[in-house]
Amino acid sequence: MSDRLRIGMDIGGTKTEAVAIDAAGGVVATALLPTPPGVEPVLATAEQAIAELAAQTGRGVREFASVGVGIPGQVDRASGEVRLAYNIGIEHLALAARLGERTGLPVALDNDVNAAALGAAHLMGLDGTVSYLNIGTGLAEGLVIDGALQRGAHGITGEIGHFAIDPLGRQCLCGQLGCLETAASGAALRNFWPAGGEHPGRTLLPAVDAGDAEAQAAFEHLVRGSATAIRLLVLLLDPHTVVIGGGLRLLGDRLFDAIRGRLAEWGAQSPFIAELGIAERIRLLSEGSPAAAVGAALAGADRPGEAAADRPGEPVAGRAGTDAHRRGDAP
Amino acid sequence: MSDRLRIGMDIGGTKTEAVAIDAAGGVVATALLPTPPGVEPVLATAEQAIAELAAQTGRGVREFASVGVGIPGQVDRASGEVRLAYNIGIEHLALAARLGERTGLPVALDNDVNAAALGAAHLMGLDGTVSYLNIGTGLAEGLVIDGALQRGAHGITGEIGHFAIDPLGRQCLCGQLGCLETAASGAALRNFWPAGGEHPGRTLLPAVDAGDAEAQAAFEHLVRGSATAIRLLVLLLDPHTVVIGGGLRLLGDRLFDAIRGRLAEWGAQSPFIAELGIAERIRLLSEGSPAAAVGAALAGADRPGEAAADRPGEPVAGRAGTDAHRRGDAP
Ligand SMILES: [Zn+2]
Ligand SMILES: [Zn+2]
Repeated sequence: MSDRLRIGMDIGGTKTEAVAIDAAGGVVATALLPTPPGVEPVLATAEQAIAELAAQTGRGVREFASVGVGIPGQVDRASGEVRLAYNIGIEHLALAARLGERTGLPVALDNDVNAAALGAAHLMGLDGTVSYLNIGTGLAEGLVIDGALQRGAHGITGEIGHFAIDPLGRQCLCGQLGCLETAASGAALRNFWPAGGEHPGRTLLPAVDAGDAEAQAAFEHLVRGSATAIRLLVLLLDPHTVVIGGGLRLLGDRLFDAIRGRLAEWGAQSPFIAELGIAERIRLLSEGSPAAAVGAALAGADRPGEAAADRPGEPVAGRAGTDAHRRGDAP
Repeated sequence: MSDRLRIGMDIGGTKTEAVAIDAAGGVVATALLPTPPGVEPVLATAEQAIAELAAQTGRGVREFASVGVGIPGQVDRASGEVRLAYNIGIEHLALAARLGERTGLPVALDNDVNAAALGAAHLMGLDGTVSYLNIGTGLAEGLVIDGALQRGAHGITGEIGHFAIDPLGRQCLCGQLGCLETAASGAALRNFWPAGGEHPGRTLLPAVDAGDAEAQAAFEHLVRGSATAIRLLVLLLDPHTVVIGGGLRLLGDRLFDAIRGRLAEWGAQSPFIAELGIAERIRLLSEGSPAAAVGAALAGADRPGEAAADRPGEPVAGRAGTDAHRRGDAP
């Protein structure tokens, strides 16, 4: 690793956030731009963000060490391509190659949730086993152990949202019934509470407090589904910390307290569950945290094909299926 | 690591298996003894097994480098104590200290399922992310990444059996309803098929083939619960391989094929699930594999308090609650 600055970028449905980090992982510059949809606008935005970081830090673009990009959709780290990132208007884009041509920098891609998991563990100073639960448009999770992102065999870890748990539940986009994501996600909020419009997270709590029965049901599903996912992560992985992030993190302490309350109810029914101390392990990602951009910068330093997948040399497929629906921001 | 041989031991409900492994992890000697229940008989058996390995390898007992023990119950690695290992008649035993006094060797304990996970990955030559599903008296899982056992924050990983999934399901010993273990375990077989007696795994398939409706239902629950657990592991962790072990591994290809068939049905309902290729990732642990003993030997070389838990220095609690019920052998 050189002492040159690394760039990390989180290309989301509404905004693109870019950071420059130093060798110690400290953020030394930040750029925030709207994300106009489509291949060329996304590329131009990414290039502009890099230029802004160069200007802020008084360097030439080519003096940066690397660019890591966290992006929704199906990400193929080995080829540097992204597919089906519908909320940024992209069907297919060879992003690593195209952005590399424009900037002369090595570019690596990562799934946005994985990037946020890595960045959250870094920014929050969390060692050991860290689970990150992203409650956004979809529901997904990431795993960081001792500071290292765990990508699994094919880069399709984190699909907790598509664990079908309720055979009487709603149809999921993945083809199954009653996936956790059909309860706990921005998409689920829209489904249970159509009156909430396109961004139900922003108006849910006032509607709940005003006695809107559909909003209350939607919130209840969100809390139960999120608490179920957290219980599952703790049972399987015994993480030191479960970090809650994603767009619905904007519900803040109300969501946090409701999840903890639900976990306490379960603990009252089972001494075994109570002993796990699940509620004490949860932390909410700070509002406005640049976790995904920072994580992308950190992950961008691993070249795909070197230490990227845990079996070097094996093709690393993108997340399957419904990635386009699991974006963390703006539910 | 020296070139002295390391001992690993799997103390189970019916037998104690011990191995001596060389620096490369190769098994150079094996001892197999019945396990009489109770503190003193268990200690005497362990000591005798070590003496047999010494005799077989032509060494003095004190020439071995270390002893690692895989044992059911609540294992506290830091203190070297085991609690509530009912199927070997132990309420509490400071096993590491007591066996250390008797042999003059450093002794480390591990949960039997974790030991088997590590040993299976080693013996099967599996790199990358390996999930191990132990279908025994209970249902539990272990995780090995790049040859390293992942113990989580408090050493209570692997509790997949107590993920409550069916609110209409049976009461579990942990206090919850419808845990996966109430469908897929030796205990569940006894529950659904009381006529199968104490060791239903041994007679289940003939009864299924003879048209015994309760045996058929028990088998169906076992297959569905096991396939659900495997689907869950793949969704969350994207392992290269899921190894099936534990006492019910004796059902062999019949169980294996039925699980794969159930996964194929789910894949037919969801292209997303089909794409994950879950069935292709499963492997059955070899019959009679000394995985737990070998894994205990490998894990025994990590001194608790050094690299044992992933946050060094933090107290490492045993698995909580129902460990005494999750023994891998003789369901
Ligand atoms: Zn789904
Ligand atoms: Zn249970």
